[in-house]
Amino acid sequence: MSIALTANFVVKDGMDKEFQAIVLDLAGQVLEKEPGVRMYQLCRSQTLSGQYRLFEVYDNAEVLAAHSQTEWFKALGPKLGACLAEKPMIEKFDFVQA
Amino acid sequence: MSIALTANFVVKDGMDKEFQAIVLDLAGQVLEKEPGVRMYQLCRSQTLSGQYRLFEVYDNAEVLAAHSQTEWFKALGPKLGACLAEKPMIEKFDFVQA
Repeated sequence: MSIALTANFVVKDGMDKEFQAIVLDLAGQVLEKEPGVRMYQLCRSQTLSGQYRLFEVYDNAEVLAAHSQTEWFKALGPKLGACLAEKPMIEKFDFVQA
Repeated sequence: MSIALTANFVVKDGMDKEFQAIVLDLAGQVLEKEPGVRMYQLCRSQTLSGQYRLFEVYDNAEVLAAHSQTEWFKALGPKLGACLAEKPMIEKFDFVQA
């Protein structure tokens, strides 16, 4: 069963470029090295300034668990610390199939 | 520029099956008839009971505008009315590209 995960980020004023570069670099590695990850897309809110959402889709819970143990994912937290105004909010969903 | 849109739904107790059937039927029509729609996936929250999110990705604003004028999308509101505990919450995002 596919899983969708969203991470919501609030970025400090003036840190957008740095934040985007860090997450886009991670996304590139994830999509290249983790075949079961179907989507790892950074998006910027059209209405709330400085607010971003990372859209992630995994083939199953095992792929998500493996992702969270990769060195490139583990390196994200320390890098992002300086950019964020608050802790990211994570939400998880199961795909509903016919 | 691709656009991500999420619609959050809170479904009345006991109306899950009906709600899912209505949205899955719509999703089938959208993905079949609207080539610029890349994702139209219903998901169910893993943590909040009765809460769903519809993940939608459009190639651009024109595709999104055309979607909102289709007869199958316009038919959604009246059908969903009986299932929902509150008004859906819509959020729109722009893809961030390298």
